[in-house]
Amino acid sequence: MRIPLDRDSDEPLYRQIQRFLSEQIQAGALPTGTRLPATRELASSLEISRTTVTNAYAELEAEGLVFSQLGSGTFVAPLLGTLPEPAENLVSAGDWPLWQQQPLDRGQALAQQELAYLFASVAHPDLISFVGGVGAAQLFPVDDFRKAIQAVLRRDGPDALAYGDPAGYPPLRTTIAHILTSQGIPAHPDNVLITSGAQQALALIAYLLLRPGDVVLVESPTYVGAIALFRSMGVRLQGVPVDEQGMRVESVEGLLRTVRPRLVYVMANFQNPTGVCMSGQRRRQLVALANRYNVPILEDDYVGDLRYDGRAQPALKALDPGGHVMYVSTFSKVLMPGIRVGFLVAEGPVYERILAGKHTHDLATSTLMQRALEAYITVGRYQAHLRRVRRLYRCRRDAMLEALERYMPDGTRWELPQGGLFLWLQLPAGLSAEELHSLAGEEGVCFVPGSYFFHGKRPQSFLRLSFVVNPVEVIEEGARRLARAIERLLVRGDDEDASAPRHREVQV
Amino acid sequence: MRIPLDRDSDEPLYRQIQRFLSEQIQAGALPTGTRLPATRELASSLEISRTTVTNAYAELEAEGLVFSQLGSGTFVAPLLGTLPEPAENLVSAGDWPLWQQQPLDRGQALAQQELAYLFASVAHPDLISFVGGVGAAQLFPVDDFRKAIQAVLRRDGPDALAYGDPAGYPPLRTTIAHILTSQGIPAHPDNVLITSGAQQALALIAYLLLRPGDVVLVESPTYVGAIALFRSMGVRLQGVPVDEQGMRVESVEGLLRTVRPRLVYVMANFQNPTGVCMSGQRRRQLVALANRYNVPILEDDYVGDLRYDGRAQPALKALDPGGHVMYVSTFSKVLMPGIRVGFLVAEGPVYERILAGKHTHDLATSTLMQRALEAYITVGRYQAHLRRVRRLYRCRRDAMLEALERYMPDGTRWELPQGGLFLWLQLPAGLSAEELHSLAGEEGVCFVPGSYFFHGKRPQSFLRLSFVVNPVEVIEEGARRLARAIERLLVRGDDEDASAPRHREVQV
Repeated sequence: MRIPLDRDSDEPLYRQIQRFLSEQIQAGALPTGTRLPATRELASSLEISRTTVTNAYAELEAEGLVFSQLGSGTFVAPLLGTLPEPAENLVSAGDWPLWQQQPLDRGQALAQQELAYLFASVAHPDLISFVGGVGAAQLFPVDDFRKAIQAVLRRDGPDALAYGDPAGYPPLRTTIAHILTSQGIPAHPDNVLITSGAQQALALIAYLLLRPGDVVLVESPTYVGAIALFRSMGVRLQGVPVDEQGMRVESVEGLLRTVRPRLVYVMANFQNPTGVCMSGQRRRQLVALANRYNVPILEDDYVGDLRYDGRAQPALKALDPGGHVMYVSTFSKVLMPGIRVGFLVAEGPVYERILAGKHTHDLATSTLMQRALEAYITVGRYQAHLRRVRRLYRCRRDAMLEALERYMPDGTRWELPQGGLFLWLQLPAGLSAEELHSLAGEEGVCFVPGSYFFHGKRPQSFLRLSFVVNPVEVIEEGARRLARAIERLLVRGDDEDASAPRHREVQV
Repeated sequence: MRIPLDRDSDEPLYRQIQRFLSEQIQAGALPTGTRLPATRELASSLEISRTTVTNAYAELEAEGLVFSQLGSGTFVAPLLGTLPEPAENLVSAGDWPLWQQQPLDRGQALAQQELAYLFASVAHPDLISFVGGVGAAQLFPVDDFRKAIQAVLRRDGPDALAYGDPAGYPPLRTTIAHILTSQGIPAHPDNVLITSGAQQALALIAYLLLRPGDVVLVESPTYVGAIALFRSMGVRLQGVPVDEQGMRVESVEGLLRTVRPRLVYVMANFQNPTGVCMSGQRRRQLVALANRYNVPILEDDYVGDLRYDGRAQPALKALDPGGHVMYVSTFSKVLMPGIRVGFLVAEGPVYERILAGKHTHDLATSTLMQRALEAYITVGRYQAHLRRVRRLYRCRRDAMLEALERYMPDGTRWELPQGGLFLWLQLPAGLSAEELHSLAGEEGVCFVPGSYFFHGKRPQSFLRLSFVVNPVEVIEEGARRLARAIERLLVRGDDEDASAPRHREVQV
């Protein structure tokens, strides 16, 4: 490339190069995707230092005119200025078609707002975040998975990029059946269905079995993604309280008689958000009730593999005599969420119906991701990784418990989670976690207010803390900041009580 | 490893090794995942030839006791014998819970049957198949995509395996907006939503806008996956006939008045299954009608990039003045389906509602696949690949047309497709493509009977031929076989007419 340089000019050489290339790009002489000369080559041909060229390219990149890609060079970027404005800026709200002007129904708007809230909370890198609902990103087995993908693409070629079996890659279904069977959940590959994450398994089952106005029994509190899903369908939720033994099954029978739910949705292990496990006795009772009242159970075992101590109770699925329990799980929590591979296990005619739904929803889950996952598990990496994260998360849980013990003011309470990701904390009487949230943000720590996990009346005194995503020393610092925020809220509460006492919601 | 060998035995050495290892595995002495010694090592330590060891391992692999993995060795396989029987074998149909005994509704059963049929047809490797609904697997850019994944995982690390933005990886949305804008479809990244294939885009829009009993206008014939989706939701389909200018828009206005559809679903380019394009005039008329009657249009441009000749008409989306058209497309056809990345473009409040639906359906599409795709496109590989497949598919289409010209009996008719994947063939009067299918199978060729693309009355005289998946010489041979099958059916028809004339369905 010939770039005219004036060595006597006041304009530095790197500016001259930058200006020349910028003009060429804007004029279209260097179209999008053109590779610029390597810095070494250009420096040599212009007889200048390589740093000068590097500086010029860096300026161009800062302007958005070029980008460096994949260690393979510097390329002319698409001209972003040519994109249209977002339509929202051009059309006023009243101009949208009438069919678009139906307001979001309350349920959907709420769910969106909640999720936006969660995501916004995650997006502050300067905070210590106890928000995340997945494992620690630093532990994602990036390298091993990269190798598994490589190996699969080399081994299977185009087959790894075809549609594949809508029920899922058969060897992966076999592998999952083996893992489940070894955990006491007898599963045959023909009863395993691979889904695009556990969320899709919930959605497929919900869309198949539920109609607007139907009632679903859920734990109260429960997973926000399930609340959002059910609400968006116009399904009514009936909460069953949770205590340290999980869902209070003794109140279920009355509800089965009175509200006649079409489905029971339950997380028996390390429940989200409370972290508690359902007792063995309650599990047996719930399955017996499903049987007696002819109601399907949707068991979401999103994180059952992550037990740090205590004894595992059998899955509801393992106690199911004949096709009442649909079991859902995922690799998102132990491995990583970005592969979007979950699965469900179901027997009987409902399996074929869910499979038909899978096909109409998205045809099939990426066969490449499934094959890579299967290769990764089969060479033994999954079990090794599981042992590693279990060990580490246990330490982090212990660090969280110690730090809470040390810093939390009197009146703050929490349960010991035997596994999973979350700890459920109750504030001293009268405090609101939503109010705490902004104070905590000032102190540099964030969490999910517990109210977001309730679908009806929204108790204010709880918060959910993820103990797995931060290293031990960060957990300690986060807990200290949280304690400071609580103390500030306590003081503020006292001031207010003194000046103008007001109604406070009673705990549930 | 010490394996006792009896060199004086009648049992060959490889058999002795096989038997010993087999017993060890079955007894659990070599647990699942154990790596067997490399053939070279074992041969050396036993002082036998390496071929003997290789033969023993091959026998074990054939028995399913070991598997060789990823070029990294031979491993003990999971004991498949320990898996439970499929539940279907253990429980008689009447024993399933009552809630499971509701029969599949007619629509869903039909869709399933159709799709099973299609898949079963694909699964005969000895046949020449004109069935496939995607591009040729041999052309999937496996290697370039493998490199893109590698590069992305190296560049982004754990971020490439996190959940990511539910609307899609922002740089990919920007890239798609640029591609669309360059094609005359003004799109802003904020109006692009990445989906798990185009099928999910259809499903999200359908679940958002439609309720059981609602009417959707579709082309007749139309895409089976859309028929299956709408039927599974209890939505009623109203067909609009298709001619060589695409959907016959002149009959749409009457339908908008009488059946009051909630949605119009249309493929304006290289319609599936007929391969025809909608004329520019009809496009304008349809958009004007949507505007006048306040009805949304779902434009499925599944293969618009694959034009071989003729002039492109503007997309309906490009003609849309204000938020009536939702545009859907995919990378499955030009690249490969296994990555499961499609997208939609929508403006106005409906975008946010679809996004909320995306979140409840499966949280997000694999960010790894999105990032790899973005890297692949940005370095210019996509455009190069597109040019290559266009050139090749055009040759294949021409080969198909020539072969049909040469071999088809009088009375067989077809249109010239200007792009896409499919050719729509009409049999001589009175013949049935479903009857032809078994004769064609005997001749060694298969296709999709056209009746599967109709949702109501199912005309029998059409068939859909994919011209892209086979090389030119295979296309020619396939067409010859197909012609033979048609001639056999003609003869059979004549015989039947002579002996016992019977009613034949009238063409539509």
